Amino acid sequence: MPENFSDRLLKAIAEKKTPAVVAIDPVYSRLPAEIAEHRELNDESDSEAALDAVLEFCRHVIHVVAPIVPAVKLNSAYFERYYSEGVDGYYELIQEAQERGLLVIGDIKRGDVGHSSEAYAAAHVIDSEFTNLPDLAAPDAVTVNGYFGTDGVAPFLEAAGSAGKGLFVLVRTSNESAVELQDVFTSDGRRIHEVLGGLVARWAGEYGLTGSRGYSCVGAVCAAREPEMARRLRELMPHSILLVPGYGAQGLTAEHCAPFFKSDGSGAVVAAGRSVIYAYEQPHYLELYTSEWKKCVEHACRDFVADLARVTKVG
Amino acid sequence: MPENFSDRLLKAIAEKKTPAVVAIDPVYSRLPAEIAEHRELNDESDSEAALDAVLEFCRHVIHVVAPIVPAVKLNSAYFERYYSEGVDGYYELIQEAQERGLLVIGDIKRGDVGHSSEAYAAAHVIDSEFTNLPDLAAPDAVTVNGYFGTDGVAPFLEAAGSAGKGLFVLVRTSNESAVELQDVFTSDGRRIHEVLGGLVARWAGEYGLTGSRGYSCVGAVCAAREPEMARRLRELMPHSILLVPGYGAQGLTAEHCAPFFKSDGSGAVVAAGRSVIYAYEQPHYLELYTSEWKKCVEHACRDFVADLARVTKVG
Repeated sequence: MPENFSDRLLKAIAEKKTPAVVAIDPVYSRLPAEIAEHRELNDESDSEAALDAVLEFCRHVIHVVAPIVPAVKLNSAYFERYYSEGVDGYYELIQEAQERGLLVIGDIKRGDVGHSSEAYAAAHVIDSEFTNLPDLAAPDAVTVNGYFGTDGVAPFLEAAGSAGKGLFVLVRTSNESAVELQDVFTSDGRRIHEVLGGLVARWAGEYGLTGSRGYSCVGAVCAAREPEMARRLRELMPHSILLVPGYGAQGLTAEHCAPFFKSDGSGAVVAAGRSVIYAYEQPHYLELYTSEWKKCVEHACRDFVADLARVTKVG
Repeated sequence: MPENFSDRLLKAIAEKKTPAVVAIDPVYSRLPAEIAEHRELNDESDSEAALDAVLEFCRHVIHVVAPIVPAVKLNSAYFERYYSEGVDGYYELIQEAQERGLLVIGDIKRGDVGHSSEAYAAAHVIDSEFTNLPDLAAPDAVTVNGYFGTDGVAPFLEAAGSAGKGLFVLVRTSNESAVELQDVFTSDGRRIHEVLGGLVARWAGEYGLTGSRGYSCVGAVCAAREPEMARRLRELMPHSILLVPGYGAQGLTAEHCAPFFKSDGSGAVVAAGRSVIYAYEQPHYLELYTSEWKKCVEHACRDFVADLARVTKVG
């Protein structure tokens, strides 16, 4: 039986002494000039050249943050944008990050009816079982859309449990419009995202999904600006590690993230994306390092970790 | 300005005289013996051989159903399962189907926060704008997960409106567990799926998204066994074409589908998948054609069309 994902994640958090996760959502137009300029064929209108630059950027970011954080999150949207070669790049980066000791969260947000979720789980949760692709590894965890309910999520649960992988079900997202559907009150006084949170708690408690420290391999994506909402989500899913997005560029602060942690400092990871990977766009870091973009990223990543350390007590 | 997707779909329905859509969700283990046996290297454990067989099957199905139905639906899960080569195969089949006069619905069920949805829309809604991939076409419409709300769907809306493509937002899905979240009552007496349906109605009514017959390029995926639920969904989204999944293998009958149509017979398409594409597994068709699997598929497709014609009056 492979090690439960929650144990692997908690161990990585303890080693790096931070629950900080770097989200890598690469957009060509924001790449550092150094990467955009040293190519002959560099052109946003050529998918191969653009992807090549994007992947080079991502590899550097992975190298820079690998000694600092326990995990990175790769959003598949930014790779699918380059069609099949982008998908190859996505899996290459997963391998690259894993080889550097990082856990990888595949931010795929997939969800479908059961037999289709089974096909998604085969691609995104389980390492390749094809004899001609023996080294192709899936990420250590993926994000899942739970709108379908139990039978749509079940194939992901089964795959994650048996493969030692993790899931983060989207419960309360970080975007402004999340209020429109997710925060609507139900007839019994809960918000819609709490109904889904209740389902996650049930799934997380299933036999075989819980690790040695009482956490399940089934976590949840949760963001909230109101501390009360965050506390309710934390209580609702006691056995789930919560993945909190939205720090930095999307406006969430360390204080917003604090209530997602338990009093012992465990139970959540916080993801920052653009505020770290594009740090070289910020005058604050540019002044320190001018064109040395990797130093800007490293400094921003350490600032992110330090900022979280103010409100959490990991390690 | 490209033609609105709703106009293109309504025209295709009128030409073929049916709102029937064939869903192509290919699973290797269910392929006809003829396709599984005539290969030397055929082996489910080899992704190239397996995908090769899957694509051959899909191409045959497309050829068989192209003269009969207005559209096919390709679920990306079954192609992603074969990694980047599967993604190549997905886009090849889109082109193949479009060349045979079919509209293609890419059943991708994507949804994310705004900037990530933008990357998804670039891959899945807009035809390739890369100079090195001039012929790579996106499907004519895609399915979208609306859990994020307006700002998550907006990039899909913008892409669809400007490119003459369509969207079908998941409102009420066909699986049994849909009741767990989607049917929960809100404090104002609606069901959760009706809240999302209300958002779809608002999006569908936006400037620039409506075609010449009053339908928007923004449709919705809706399935229900209760006629009252179906009628409410129909009324809630008067300008949306509803994509009704679940006919056949998932247990929905033509009678279940009838209330999703307006009294003039317009306003919905019905998708059947496994009951058509795997018709050769059914004794009823096997007896007629023995091993001629394509004839079984054709017959089942015509039966599907005839069954729908009993309850709708298109053409």
